[in-house]
Amino acid sequence: MNEILTRNIKHLLTSLVVQGVHDFVVSPGSRTTPFALLLAEMQAVRDDVRVTVDVDERSAAFFALGMAKATHQPVALLATSGTATANYLPAIMEAHISHVPLIALTTDRPEELQEIGAPQTVNQANMYGDNTKAFSALQMQDDHADVTAYIDYHVQQLVVTATTAPAGPVQINLPLRKPLMPDLGEAWPTITQQTITVGTMRADETTVAMVANKLRDEKTLILVGPDETGWIAEKFVALAEHFQAPMLADVLSNVRSSDAAINGIDALLEAGALDDALVPDVVVRFGGTPVSARVVAWLRDKQVQVIQVGINHAGHDHSRQTTTTLAVDEMALIDELLATAGRAENDYRSQWQTVKQTLAQAIATTEMSEVALPSVLAAVPDDSQVFIANSMPIRDMDNYFMPATKVHVMANRGANGIDGTVSSAFGMAMTGKPTTFLTGDLTLFHDMNGLMMAHQANLDMTIVVVNNNGGGIFSFLPQAAAKDYFEPMFGTPLALSVEKIAALYDAEYHLATSQDDLRELIAQPATTLRLIEVQSTRAQNVAEHDALLAKIREAFNG
Amino acid sequence: MNEILTRNIKHLLTSLVVQGVHDFVVSPGSRTTPFALLLAEMQAVRDDVRVTVDVDERSAAFFALGMAKATHQPVALLATSGTATANYLPAIMEAHISHVPLIALTTDRPEELQEIGAPQTVNQANMYGDNTKAFSALQMQDDHADVTAYIDYHVQQLVVTATTAPAGPVQINLPLRKPLMPDLGEAWPTITQQTITVGTMRADETTVAMVANKLRDEKTLILVGPDETGWIAEKFVALAEHFQAPMLADVLSNVRSSDAAINGIDALLEAGALDDALVPDVVVRFGGTPVSARVVAWLRDKQVQVIQVGINHAGHDHSRQTTTTLAVDEMALIDELLATAGRAENDYRSQWQTVKQTLAQAIATTEMSEVALPSVLAAVPDDSQVFIANSMPIRDMDNYFMPATKVHVMANRGANGIDGTVSSAFGMAMTGKPTTFLTGDLTLFHDMNGLMMAHQANLDMTIVVVNNNGGGIFSFLPQAAAKDYFEPMFGTPLALSVEKIAALYDAEYHLATSQDDLRELIAQPATTLRLIEVQSTRAQNVAEHDALLAKIREAFNG
Repeated sequence: MNEILTRNIKHLLTSLVVQGVHDFVVSPGSRTTPFALLLAEMQAVRDDVRVTVDVDERSAAFFALGMAKATHQPVALLATSGTATANYLPAIMEAHISHVPLIALTTDRPEELQEIGAPQTVNQANMYGDNTKAFSALQMQDDHADVTAYIDYHVQQLVVTATTAPAGPVQINLPLRKPLMPDLGEAWPTITQQTITVGTMRADETTVAMVANKLRDEKTLILVGPDETGWIAEKFVALAEHFQAPMLADVLSNVRSSDAAINGIDALLEAGALDDALVPDVVVRFGGTPVSARVVAWLRDKQVQVIQVGINHAGHDHSRQTTTTLAVDEMALIDELLATAGRAENDYRSQWQTVKQTLAQAIATTEMSEVALPSVLAAVPDDSQVFIANSMPIRDMDNYFMPATKVHVMANRGANGIDGTVSSAFGMAMTGKPTTFLTGDLTLFHDMNGLMMAHQANLDMTIVVVNNNGGGIFSFLPQAAAKDYFEPMFGTPLALSVEKIAALYDAEYHLATSQDDLRELIAQPATTLRLIEVQSTRAQNVAEHDALLAKIREAFNG
Repeated sequence: MNEILTRNIKHLLTSLVVQGVHDFVVSPGSRTTPFALLLAEMQAVRDDVRVTVDVDERSAAFFALGMAKATHQPVALLATSGTATANYLPAIMEAHISHVPLIALTTDRPEELQEIGAPQTVNQANMYGDNTKAFSALQMQDDHADVTAYIDYHVQQLVVTATTAPAGPVQINLPLRKPLMPDLGEAWPTITQQTITVGTMRADETTVAMVANKLRDEKTLILVGPDETGWIAEKFVALAEHFQAPMLADVLSNVRSSDAAINGIDALLEAGALDDALVPDVVVRFGGTPVSARVVAWLRDKQVQVIQVGINHAGHDHSRQTTTTLAVDEMALIDELLATAGRAENDYRSQWQTVKQTLAQAIATTEMSEVALPSVLAAVPDDSQVFIANSMPIRDMDNYFMPATKVHVMANRGANGIDGTVSSAFGMAMTGKPTTFLTGDLTLFHDMNGLMMAHQANLDMTIVVVNNNGGGIFSFLPQAAAKDYFEPMFGTPLALSVEKIAALYDAEYHLATSQDDLRELIAQPATTLRLIEVQSTRAQNVAEHDALLAKIREAFNG
């Protein structure tokens, strides 16, 4: 019998659940044994717990990240001791920057096996450094009366720490001594949820009035960047409508389908489509760093007054153009702004609406190309989800994805890595909504293990793979001129067959050669794992981007 | 023109080379651009530089680890900024514990883009914590006259830091500001190699005499654990012969084919094959923690005096049985011991030789099974290499692999993870010697991306995949009794087709169903990538292990 261990673990797991952690992503191992078995039992006896197994810890952490972002709930991870825990670092970093509450449960060897040559033992104390908001080591085998009560109390507090803005991951390290077998089949404790009220950070009345006045009286743009915080997209739409303000909508803002949204700002700026009448006096900026690098540079060049709103990203404006930082709750501020007088239709908004229509017409095309994919992807089912890989896909989508209906769009846009992307897309699919994932071949390869989650979690998904045999983005950078070394060092063709990848993972395979083909496929929700290949070449892609840009330039400048 | 950047990078790279870094493993990215291009140019103009590209940074670091261990040379890594660098952590940890000199070159965003919401920017300062021996940030774009001279001096010292026992990885962080294009085609600097002499840590005469006396006069066993330090295996054989001492040879000791070697100690102890006459008075222990957990427990149970020798692993005896720690250079001590009087043939040695022969006869079998694989693998070409995955393969090989000729055997036996194993095996293959890799299906899956190195580095390899559809080792642990939860939480069947993996990576595929089949295949060096599947079931494997152990028990105890 292993009574103390069993009791303390049950208290820890139940404390997580009562404070709102319902999803657990487990990677198998030996040191995790009591946690894994009790999690499995908890899933069997409670209907509000879901356990998913992912054998690759790097993939597991990115999967949990995707799930936490899509569900706006904290997600717990469980890994065995040693390098297994180190595989979490990339996703923990991404979660730190994107403010996603992951709870990393790292099982460890006990004190007496540290630094003494014991196998599978590394220094796990605070191993993610300043990428986690909190670190605790909890003793599961200490039978002191205070310990169990401490677990109940402290674990609940840790969940709140992870979920409180600026949200972020926390690590709980769990040294465990053999024997590791828990007692199965015994009663579970009832643990009361602590009431932990975290206050709302609000601006004072003067500040609210200042922002309202700007929105009402000046040429004010709303800029909505990536949303990683679970905000309510409809509120931004309401804000823009209330003040009849044009709203620059990042592809990850999730407000793109609204009338107020102005999409594709990066392409507009690259094409020189915006005359000076469109330059705002003020920008009210929400969310993370926009995908468009040009938009923040433009605000700086034009010396626009920038008011940056939000707790997560206060101080994060690498253009340094922000003059007023409001470290307040976005939703609360919007509610307060909506309670003030609104604004009538105005010329400034109309001018941007004209820009919007001209761009939409300019990019309409029937030919198949990488740059045409965003328009085709607008055909995904209503109320479905789209996950976008970094590098070229996110840039193309930011420029040219203009959905007519509500689509939830995500990407890993904290540190912008290409690692773990497949896994995060599957994590998003855990919501049960139809999910479409757009990726290049290199990003697909980097996290190919993520495809296993279709099998492990019984998930359907449509994956559109743009196969240009290597890293497409580098062809747009100065190194493309270094002809002698470019292909091996940057192009890095891997010569992977997408069809064979599909075969390996028992996926449906399609080669889409026309827009109609692709549109027809993605309009239907997947009922299995589907890999749809779109073939391209990197040279051709550069030419097609140039051609589209020329079209936009012509549309605006005649 | 980008003169300062180009000059400083050339000085950094050349300083690495003159101090002994000849291999560079590069993962593509944007921030790495000047390093990647200048590395490619350096490879073109020098014949002592080899650049290998691996797009998955986790794989790249494990590949570099395998190469550094096999070549006994430091290997440099180059990654772009952001989560890319975090993917190095698992291999850096393994290198730290195994004392492998990796030089992690992490390119970074410049100071003015830190903590300000700039893309692909994470905190890279000393990001591997106490897993690296040293951390330096070097400014490539500072034109102060001292900077270039500092680079020449300091980078050479860092290489020596990495390679000096206890050896280990170092990190050099490289903030880089745009523009990143270096000047190509210009002259390279000539940099003089600093003479940096690191003294040899030697024992005093009294200590040498003490050890010699033990070896000469008492029942003394030599225990040679895993070798990660590039020691000279022949010296251990000479030591054992000089003193006619039995030598317990870990599968990673690389002394197994010698007469003095006693192999399979873990199976002997499990079978209760050793009577008390075989218990030594003293053990002189070299190398890392033995694969056999039973051998150190046995020494503790029998209260044997343990003398642990070596700088890397001083203090690393988790049985805590060591009474005398000699933090000295192993090779130097052996030379000094060989200069003393030796010992004649003796009963103690003969008794162990009898044990050796009895075991060899007991394990002879003609049936195909997981447990028979080590005997079959003894048929690999002479002077070839074998890389062994952790978990079941390393345990089976430690018990039953008894090569008749010289074979270089490696595994990642620092933190004993299953991550990165495929990549490390390919890193070992960079020596150009025929290489055979033994792995289970789960470990193959965990690092499947490593298979890309066959293509990227044009490497041949024979991979023997024991496919028991999941994690075999857990069937030997107590959780196997938790029938309700065992399969999803521990068995984790992935239902991967090895044949389809072979198809994806353009590899030859073989299904070996008999010992003769397999022996014939592996006796021939691979001329391409070969995947040889051996099918097994986890239940059958437990039964076969039990049966073999019963045979051994019977052979010894009648």
